[in-house]
Amino acid sequence: MTTQQNIPARTVFIVSDGTGITAEALARSVLSQFNLSYSRVHIPFVDTIEKVRHAREQIQNEYRQTGLLPIVFSTLVIPELVCILREARALHLDVIQTFVDPLKKELGISPKQEIGLSHQNMESEEYKNRIEAINFTLAHDDGQSNRNLDEADVILVGVSRSGKTPTSLYLAMQYGLKVANYPLIPEDFERGRLPSSLESYKNKLFGLTIQPERLAEVRNERRPNSRYASLENCRYEVFEAEGMMNLEGIPYLSSTSKSIEEISTAILSDMRAFSSPAQEKPSPKI
Amino acid sequence: MTTQQNIPARTVFIVSDGTGITAEALARSVLSQFNLSYSRVHIPFVDTIEKVRHAREQIQNEYRQTGLLPIVFSTLVIPELVCILREARALHLDVIQTFVDPLKKELGISPKQEIGLSHQNMESEEYKNRIEAINFTLAHDDGQSNRNLDEADVILVGVSRSGKTPTSLYLAMQYGLKVANYPLIPEDFERGRLPSSLESYKNKLFGLTIQPERLAEVRNERRPNSRYASLENCRYEVFEAEGMMNLEGIPYLSSTSKSIEEISTAILSDMRAFSSPAQEKPSPKI
Repeated sequence: MTTQQNIPARTVFIVSDGTGITAEALARSVLSQFNLSYSRVHIPFVDTIEKVRHAREQIQNEYRQTGLLPIVFSTLVIPELVCILREARALHLDVIQTFVDPLKKELGISPKQEIGLSHQNMESEEYKNRIEAINFTLAHDDGQSNRNLDEADVILVGVSRSGKTPTSLYLAMQYGLKVANYPLIPEDFERGRLPSSLESYKNKLFGLTIQPERLAEVRNERRPNSRYASLENCRYEVFEAEGMMNLEGIPYLSSTSKSIEEISTAILSDMRAFSSPAQEKPSPKI
Repeated sequence: MTTQQNIPARTVFIVSDGTGITAEALARSVLSQFNLSYSRVHIPFVDTIEKVRHAREQIQNEYRQTGLLPIVFSTLVIPELVCILREARALHLDVIQTFVDPLKKELGISPKQEIGLSHQNMESEEYKNRIEAINFTLAHDDGQSNRNLDEADVILVGVSRSGKTPTSLYLAMQYGLKVANYPLIPEDFERGRLPSSLESYKNKLFGLTIQPERLAEVRNERRPNSRYASLENCRYEVFEAEGMMNLEGIPYLSSTSKSIEEISTAILSDMRAFSSPAQEKPSPKI
């Protein structure tokens, strides 16, 4: 092993017969384990011999120009296309086939080797529900509407700018959940009660909180030097909101150092924990 | 090989030290290659010995109860945690390590074996930009605002219900792009010109179209038996919108049988094709 300094940059190709989104995310995770700078070429929808030959040429050219093996993450499933791609001199990492082989052996059944099997059918109920979930979530952003709250799968509450909107949209987009979100505002704290429209939906409520210092930072970007963004006010709102959520028994988590994906996963885990069987809760719709 | 009938259902575990979102998407792709019914147990945030032991127990219990090897897709990177998980009797498919090994050999450098390296830092410019992109996109949905259009990365146009809103949100959420979207409406067709606010941004425009039959179906769900949803009107609007996009030289695609992910990937490919170097275009921010 040499030291990790001065490793020449590599080119990473993502070659997929679909969007390549999964392969790209996986490549990112795998490569993050190395101190390596790389540039990334994404070649989606490679589903014909002509297209795979073109991809092969791009990879070959890269090797000719740099003298370094390009790294290829691929998700082709048609054996004929796989063979053509493999003719390119590269480090081939086959994201699907690598796991299909041991599964084939364990299950004792043959893989279908067809393209687009994980592709979501636009006519499917699942896809329609997902689009409907996005529309519902948009219509119920930031307490905009109290209509059809009984249809909501989750209702997020929290102070303004605690991360409710992006989390709601992510849950709708990726998991097909109908998510409403409501800001907890000073009027609620003065009254010492949740917005009355939420009273009947306590079992759907999930709270987000945030460190007051971080909240002040975020709010200052939007409304610099306002009372709304002041640390003092942020401390007050967060203290009151957490108090209210504790009092009402609303599960909540801090979004301070969590990404949208992490917050969403935690909310889903919580939903799963409160229902059974665990397996039947939302799965990603991508 | 037996026939593909009557294969007993399996339990699939997704065990991750992060959200497990990538592993879950990959598992879905891989398993779609088999005629197999399965139930899925998602165990995220497994980052301590205690949690991995608990995951191991769940897998063991499943094996004891069914007598069938559970299938485990995992993304643990700390060797100590990997070892504990592997003690469970299961078909272990290690989504990260499987590719780290050949990369280590090819690159001649050691992997870091640290958790959360692909985790996006909330303080990073990249993450802030992504949140800003979501806010921009929400504020510029459905032609709501003409403000700061010069900041937009893409402006989607198309008839009402052609898929602009979910596509815009996906591009913002996953790729951190600021996306505005504008409906093309009968008034635009009568005038025979794009909305005037878009005139100066032609190079950012991308169009969505849709089969009139499909459009009528989608619109009928929202406003049954309206003129807006009638096949005749849908045919008129789509014909006019496509004519306008052809005339103005706006690249467009049909959303009829494409998922949000496929439309987004196609738009990104188009953006890449019009700029260079190809490698420096948006990468997924998950």
